[in-house]
Amino acid sequence: MELTVYLAGQIHDNWREQVEEIAKQKNLPLTFVAPQTNHERSDHIGEAILGEQPGKVYKDDAASDINNLRTQVLMQKSDVVIALFGEQYKQWNTAMDASAAITMNKPTIIVRPTSLIHPLKELSNKANVTVETVEQALDVLAYIYE
Amino acid sequence: MELTVYLAGQIHDNWREQVEEIAKQKNLPLTFVAPQTNHERSDHIGEAILGEQPGKVYKDDAASDINNLRTQVLMQKSDVVIALFGEQYKQWNTAMDASAAITMNKPTIIVRPTSLIHPLKELSNKANVTVETVEQALDVLAYIYE
Amino acid sequence: MELTVYLAGQIHDNWREQVEEIAKQKNLPLTFVAPQTNHERSDHIGEAILGEQPGKVYKDDAASDINNLRTQVLMQKSDVVIALFGEQYKQWNTAMDASAAITMNKPTIIVRPTSLIHPLKELSNKANVTVETVEQALDVLAYIYE
Amino acid sequence: MELTVYLAGQIHDNWREQVEEIAKQKNLPLTFVAPQTNHERSDHIGEAILGEQPGKVYKDDAASDINNLRTQVLMQKSDVVIALFGEQYKQWNTAMDASAAITMNKPTIIVRPTSLIHPLKELSNKANVTVETVEQALDVLAYIYE
Amino acid sequence: MELTVYLAGQIHDNWREQVEEIAKQKNLPLTFVAPQTNHERSDHIGEAILGEQPGKVYKDDAASDINNLRTQVLMQKSDVVIALFGEQYKQWNTAMDASAAITMNKPTIIVRPTSLIHPLKELSNKANVTVETVEQALDVLAYIYE
Amino acid sequence: MELTVYLAGQIHDNWREQVEEIAKQKNLPLTFVAPQTNHERSDHIGEAILGEQPGKVYKDDAASDINNLRTQVLMQKSDVVIALFGEQYKQWNTAMDASAAITMNKPTIIVRPTSLIHPLKELSNKANVTVETVEQALDVLAYIYE
Amino acid sequence: MELTVYLAGQIHDNWREQVEEIAKQKNLPLTFVAPQTNHERSDHIGEAILGEQPGKVYKDDAASDINNLRTQVLMQKSDVVIALFGEQYKQWNTAMDASAAITMNKPTIIVRPTSLIHPLKELSNKANVTVETVEQALDVLAYIYE
Amino acid sequence: MELTVYLAGQIHDNWREQVEEIAKQKNLPLTFVAPQTNHERSDHIGEAILGEQPGKVYKDDAASDINNLRTQVLMQKSDVVIALFGEQYKQWNTAMDASAAITMNKPTIIVRPTSLIHPLKELSNKANVTVETVEQALDVLAYIYE
Repeated sequence: MELTVYLAGQIHDNWREQVEEIAKQKNLPLTFVAPQTNHERSDHIGEAILGEQPGKVYKDDAASDINNLRTQVLMQKSDVVIALFGEQYKQWNTAMDASAAITMNKPTIIVRPTSLIHPLKELSNKANVTVETVEQALDVLAYIYE
Repeated sequence: MELTVYLAGQIHDNWREQVEEIAKQKNLPLTFVAPQTNHERSDHIGEAILGEQPGKVYKDDAASDINNLRTQVLMQKSDVVIALFGEQYKQWNTAMDASAAITMNKPTIIVRPTSLIHPLKELSNKANVTVETVEQALDVLAYIYE
Repeated sequence: MELTVYLAGQIHDNWREQVEEIAKQKNLPLTFVAPQTNHERSDHIGEAILGEQPGKVYKDDAASDINNLRTQVLMQKSDVVIALFGEQYKQWNTAMDASAAITMNKPTIIVRPTSLIHPLKELSNKANVTVETVEQALDVLAYIYE
Repeated sequence: MELTVYLAGQIHDNWREQVEEIAKQKNLPLTFVAPQTNHERSDHIGEAILGEQPGKVYKDDAASDINNLRTQVLMQKSDVVIALFGEQYKQWNTAMDASAAITMNKPTIIVRPTSLIHPLKELSNKANVTVETVEQALDVLAYIYE
Repeated sequence: MELTVYLAGQIHDNWREQVEEIAKQKNLPLTFVAPQTNHERSDHIGEAILGEQPGKVYKDDAASDINNLRTQVLMQKSDVVIALFGEQYKQWNTAMDASAAITMNKPTIIVRPTSLIHPLKELSNKANVTVETVEQALDVLAYIYE
Repeated sequence: MELTVYLAGQIHDNWREQVEEIAKQKNLPLTFVAPQTNHERSDHIGEAILGEQPGKVYKDDAASDINNLRTQVLMQKSDVVIALFGEQYKQWNTAMDASAAITMNKPTIIVRPTSLIHPLKELSNKANVTVETVEQALDVLAYIYE
Repeated sequence: MELTVYLAGQIHDNWREQVEEIAKQKNLPLTFVAPQTNHERSDHIGEAILGEQPGKVYKDDAASDINNLRTQVLMQKSDVVIALFGEQYKQWNTAMDASAAITMNKPTIIVRPTSLIHPLKELSNKANVTVETVEQALDVLAYIYE
Repeated sequence: MELTVYLAGQIHDNWREQVEEIAKQKNLPLTFVAPQTNHERSDHIGEAILGEQPGKVYKDDAASDINNLRTQVLMQKSDVVIALFGEQYKQWNTAMDASAAITMNKPTIIVRPTSLIHPLKELSNKANVTVETVEQALDVLAYIYE
């Protein structure tokens, strides 16, 4: 049984590559999809397609139109969602994607450092599983195939 | 990841062929479906299958039965909807299809000329993205695969 | 049994008052809700609340945000939708509202002049009933109470 | 038409009282519900009801069980959601509640300072309306009754 | 707790009055709604509102538009459905309404004579309860209040 | 695009074979599924699997359990439903399946002889298309692929 | 804000009266509904309404028809579900009702003694909150009103 | 037509292997999925992935997080559910899974010994079919393909 996994969360390190690497090592039949991970590209995609906007608010809104379409398409095609929170940044998109996934009944795994236990407690509680490392998240997915 | 795209909208020019051509150039794994684009055929399909009707209202209703079944089947199989408005005609079917798609949570792109910004403002606002050209619509779809 | 009726459609004449008047004459326990019918107010509501925008597109989008929220709130509270198309204007909001209502399984009545039979044929076909006058629309609602 | 409004968001100032005050001034038939706004009480409710837990993670999880039940009950009864983000704190519960509300098709207004435009751009884009002050949020609600 | 009960089924005897009478005797807080029970009125309602149609098929379709709107409105407002089959007639509307109710998760009681056990076996099996008399149907409703 | 078509309706002649034959001639990529068409087998399947039952009602109910499971599985996998009514029999299963399909938003075609126009008028009105012959039903399906 | 609470669970002691008593003491605007708590009545309701059945299996099935209708009606009207497990009996109805409630997105509280922690662990995990006493369950409900 | 079947129920004997064996003998195109059937592994999976927990309740809850994610993923991918109850144990997970499946409209077969007829009567009544042996359950699945 092949599963598609949406990898929500921060785009400032290579955690998605780690995920794919571990899945490969474990021989799991998983396809991974994700938001745009090139931060520059993500911020500029609105103007890149729709042309220059009259200020930052409008540039941001144009980019969001297209980023949200991408997320909606890919999340609807996914069977499971992993949402990773890092120590930095506000990461409201991660919270938004995790909450949308849970509300859509997508089985959801949250990955977060122990420093974020308290501020993420309600979201962790709504998710299926909360872990601290991507290795653990993949252990959970591997368990589906045991 | 293959996606099916419903191309709602006017049937008086060859914009759907342009869409398919660009998708091919960009090597995007997209399948396109659409309403009947032969206007004559679309208007006469009711009588063609069900036999002569007692006047225009009834002929129109018979054709609509069959056109609506076609649209319902194909839209339910689609992952994304592109709805193109041209400068002419009332194009209420385009508005109807776009609104149905949005209400069904199908990610939706509207293509319209600048002359239609004002009358389409509420529908544009509900869609995920609004662009002016089919090239831009395909840029949005290509972005899903980046 | 009290019912709430959303009156979608053109805002350039007093048809909603006629509807309310007839309902009163017929003693029907109906509550009517509707989009903003002051055209000026509807077009300017974005800037009125959010402040000046950098051009027409942005002004329109700001107004649409608020008009769409209003429609979503009121349509979700409604049991029936009447959508009236007049002879003039593009009236895409009317088509959008009618199509959204039908997709949400709200029982829907379309009111349109005979001149619009052909361009509205698919939407009429999806609605429950299509009539030509507001009197007829109220006859349909009165029939629920017989 | 009476509406119930869920006030998601930060619990460190008196913005909900302001909202209620303005609604009263404007004579709007609104009922407001909200998460527990006593931060201490919210953090300790798990142990208060379920007894002492073996450490912070478990205390947090126990509290979240009960806070999430409260939110689920009240949000399901609501017709509209207002989600306010302040300048401080991570506020992931606000993002979680706003995203859940939008996914459940609850009409949603976000209130946030201009300093948060960029990190909230995708969530703002999914909400119906984004404003900067609670006065503006109430202007939007008042508009429903015009 | 007040409940609304939709009384689907044949319109050729006074079984609905019996139902209301028994509910009154038992002091049950039930509101009953039903399709148009005046057969003539039901068959002619299309032409009565929409004007003369060009033949029987069209007259029937016009009447059905309005009868179906009525049923959709009233069934959506109902908490329980009772569907009564008599010995005569094809009664496909009764089967249609019962099946729609069951598919919408409306708790459903079927009333049918023993002579119809075999042809109704699959529908009876999908309904919650099947009884032979309206007295029994009301016994079932009364049980909710014990 | 391959479609699965559920063929609801009478099981006393070979109309399903005709459907498959025409689909083959037209080269349509359709897969057909259907209820058990061996009447004997359908009536006895309950006792065949569950053992002898204490009378006809119980035998019928046991058979219905299994027939309804089959229909539910196959209809949920289908993209379109064709429901054929013949001149004889009560055919309440056909009405039940057609109504369930329509309520589940499955695009639905009804096939019925002209003699049944009146008793089927409300169901025909709720279906997408009503035709008189299986050839016409296949013409409608073929139109999806034009 | 008034809430309706479904009290699923064992019917062999007076825990529901305790619940009502505590709610009264706390002045909570709650309405309680429940399955039939008279065990005899619950077991015999099938034969009481439908007449004698040909053996225990059929008597049980007849009773279940009516008990399940009652539960479906009352649970659909409820905003919250409390499911209490006692030390004795298999209590599969309690598990069935709790699981149905959770799947229907009804906020759910489980009450169970510590001896049942292990066998109920997956169900507890899916519920919103698990407590050990009815006092605690009411504390959770009272918290909604703080 | 290939179907995926979720095998809920006890994990203390080899009934799932029997099911697979019979399906193979009958040449049915079925894929089977199931909960973790290694009881030890199922009980310890929480600590195995998340590390040692501060006591039995927390160990159980950690295991349940992961077992429930597994079940949710696999059940959402399934077309049919078979739930087997044995004579021993409380088997609340079996009841929970069967009830969740039924509420999600998954066609469901219950297998149980005659000794459990009475305590399972309401759940049996909600399922599509109840049988006593796995052979009978496979006979039901084979019937779909006749």
